[in-house]
Amino acid sequence: MMETILNHRSIRKYTSEKVSSEVLEEILNAGIRASTTGNMQVYSVVVTQDDSNKEKLAPCHFNQPMIKGAPVVLTFCADYNRFNKWCEQSNAKPGYDNFLSFVTGAIDALLVAQNVCIAAESKGLGICYLGTTTYTADKIIDVLNLPKGVVPVTTVTLGYPDESPELVDRLPLEGVVHYESYKDYSKEDIKKIYSEKEQLPENIGFVKENKKESLAQVFTDIRYKKQDNIVFSKILLDVLTKQGFMNNEE
Amino acid sequence: MMETILNHRSIRKYTSEKVSSEVLEEILNAGIRASTTGNMQVYSVVVTQDDSNKEKLAPCHFNQPMIKGAPVVLTFCADYNRFNKWCEQSNAKPGYDNFLSFVTGAIDALLVAQNVCIAAESKGLGICYLGTTTYTADKIIDVLNLPKGVVPVTTVTLGYPDESPELVDRLPLEGVVHYESYKDYSKEDIKKIYSEKEQLPENIGFVKENKKESLAQVFTDIRYKKQDNIVFSKILLDVLTKQGFMNNEE
Repeated sequence: MMETILNHRSIRKYTSEKVSSEVLEEILNAGIRASTTGNMQVYSVVVTQDDSNKEKLAPCHFNQPMIKGAPVVLTFCADYNRFNKWCEQSNAKPGYDNFLSFVTGAIDALLVAQNVCIAAESKGLGICYLGTTTYTADKIIDVLNLPKGVVPVTTVTLGYPDESPELVDRLPLEGVVHYESYKDYSKEDIKKIYSEKEQLPENIGFVKENKKESLAQVFTDIRYKKQDNIVFSKILLDVLTKQGFMNNEE
Repeated sequence: MMETILNHRSIRKYTSEKVSSEVLEEILNAGIRASTTGNMQVYSVVVTQDDSNKEKLAPCHFNQPMIKGAPVVLTFCADYNRFNKWCEQSNAKPGYDNFLSFVTGAIDALLVAQNVCIAAESKGLGICYLGTTTYTADKIIDVLNLPKGVVPVTTVTLGYPDESPELVDRLPLEGVVHYESYKDYSKEDIKKIYSEKEQLPENIGFVKENKKESLAQVFTDIRYKKQDNIVFSKILLDVLTKQGFMNNEE
């Protein structure tokens, strides 16, 4: 159990072995045991297994090979559509077309996702999260036919591992945990927290290859650029409006 | 492992037994093994154990008794403050003061939170999520002294269980999972998906006690009201602005 969590690696290459519907169902059933706000379960999971649909999803994830390479792609969505329909059918007036409700649904969806991932790994499967989901939510909505009230939040690819990567580095625990109140970081603290990461041979390699001065520049100038973040922020806020989550006035 | 996940109950009453620093550290170390966007780890965890600080946090969580009753309270935050400081110190210009970055940090924080919860449960601890975190993020920021770039996303109370509640109902799996594309719900579908929940004796009880016509009305009129959601939406959006996550223009 602890071992499953401690041994997590993102798996990006999968064997051709299918995931049986029994195993998939078992994993999804573990997913829905996650805590959920007021037991509302304001999320949905869309399972993609057909090659033609993976083909359509691939560009939404910048054609990262995991989408077509994995037997199963899971898209986790904040979903008030089902709950709203239930309310309306029950002579109850839902008031969930606002930003807080989106966040509530997103939290629900993410706890389910992580449950699914740990359950999958405990059964010998490998998983990879795709952060691209929030960048191209508009396109994913079209591909998966998501109605108003539904916003995709994250995507996980799933399959039997065909690689066994090394454990990835993490910042020292004291770098991310604060006791009693947030202790802001001094220059010295930052230096210490990031020094191991900066000195990893692969990271030194990234800096050189990209002709940058520092590892941080690889993030700001290449991997996670301001101009991209602004474009994606606008798309995501537009998606929230379009899907009915930005009616924040009486 | 699977068993831990399948047996999850929210625990709201704890024994007086402390959580040792060894156990706490082990659980937090399991937390940081969760997937994180680009291995940026854009989150922080604030640990509250002092009674005086729990006292200050309690009203942020509407005085739910778990805050003062649990030996440990964990507040999981989206955190770009540390990452931004590292960038600036490394002659790199961070572009993470936008909405997408908040969502990225929130996703990171939530995956860590769920890892922590499962790890805790596997060690015999009980946990409870507090959704109130996003309602009163402004107050929590003050109490925990969170700087710009940091937004609390969820809170978990932690301790040894002093109750053993029944497993809570969930909607049938087919009610929340869609294959290949989202199949919107017919009236008949909704009726079927929610019928078991509506027929649970405790839910029939809630409807009667509250003099409502339907279980859905208990949600819309009492537990999760539109007017509250609107107030909290505004607070949360203001928090995002104040914490530096709403600069979505070039």
